[in-house]
Amino acid sequence: MTTQVITHLRSDARDNRERILAVARAAFAAEGLDVPIREIARRAEVGVATVYRHFQTKEALLAEAFEEQLASCSAVVAEGVAADDPWRGFCLVIERLMEMHALDRGFARAFTSQYPGAADFAADRDRTLRLLLELVRRAQEAGPLRDDFVLEDISLALMANEGIRAETPELRVAASRRFAALMLQSFQANPVRAPLPPAVRLPLSRR
Amino acid sequence: MTTQVITHLRSDARDNRERILAVARAAFAAEGLDVPIREIARRAEVGVATVYRHFQTKEALLAEAFEEQLASCSAVVAEGVAADDPWRGFCLVIERLMEMHALDRGFARAFTSQYPGAADFAADRDRTLRLLLELVRRAQEAGPLRDDFVLEDISLALMANEGIRAETPELRVAASRRFAALMLQSFQANPVRAPLPPAVRLPLSRR
Repeated sequence: MTTQVITHLRSDARDNRERILAVARAAFAAEGLDVPIREIARRAEVGVATVYRHFQTKEALLAEAFEEQLASCSAVVAEGVAADDPWRGFCLVIERLMEMHALDRGFARAFTSQYPGAADFAADRDRTLRLLLELVRRAQEAGPLRDDFVLEDISLALMANEGIRAETPELRVAASRRFAALMLQSFQANPVRAPLPPAVRLPLSRR
Repeated sequence: MTTQVITHLRSDARDNRERILAVARAAFAAEGLDVPIREIARRAEVGVATVYRHFQTKEALLAEAFEEQLASCSAVVAEGVAADDPWRGFCLVIERLMEMHALDRGFARAFTSQYPGAADFAADRDRTLRLLLELVRRAQEAGPLRDDFVLEDISLALMANEGIRAETPELRVAASRRFAALMLQSFQANPVRAPLPPAVRLPLSRR
């Protein structure tokens, strides 16, 4: 093969890889993580073998599809952990995670799902959550976070955040912001009734 | 036709009708309200014409599929409105609606969706929500419900409740119960940090 042909093939392979990742993100977003590889191959207009050539396992595909978002989550948690005031750090993390999840529902779904084989993805996420748990302990010891708050309440809040639907991602983020403020007030040991971000008209309320 | 044949046909028609309703409930539950009639016909193993013979429109199908649940919602709200203490009434409604929605995600989805043509369903639901709004006003006037609470916050809370996933309906109800308690504490004008229902292990936290 000439160099030109090889370059061409490589560029094709790269295109395929990117297309598979884009299709996978969209599919996981809309239908959850159970969408089979063969369906992702079909939508990306490649053969199943091509998908497996790029991603040895479905878990590898999952991990790579959301690599960037997971890294952003870790960065947010690191920022929260580094805050002088653990309660402010905790609030920052919840607010930012909810905003990121509101913008990318596929990732939100991946983040709050237990996909049995996705060990790499789960390990990365769990590292992030363990850091967050450390922050939770500090915010409880300092006083502002209620004593009966548990890590499961973060799962609960993040899954609940996923349920919020709105006509546009912008409206979803706005609704999610109000929701985050409500949840954070419910998590406070001695709640202060701070003003809430504005309410957003939601599907249910359009009448 | 003999009477026997006619009876047989009628019984067939009744079976079809029930099967279509069951399939529709399950489909709306799993995939939202956009599942087309032809797909519901396919899964119920009847022709599209048969579906339309029983339900003139998709909206009629939707309304009938969730008739019982909508009636239960109305009954819950009526009970809440009748309570002497409007805040207690309000809490009862939120707790019961969330529990009902946690048990039947298809209905939850229908309840919090704006399906353009489903006028009957939406009208019934909106009547229920208007009653609830009345209760909101009374709970605000009496003091316990925060002033900046708006009807959209009920939508927000109900949609968020829909996002909660767990391995079994029982676990989902248990998680939803804790979530309802958190939301209600966030809605209080002068929150009292009452104990929460127990936390539930969720997909995210199984590790």
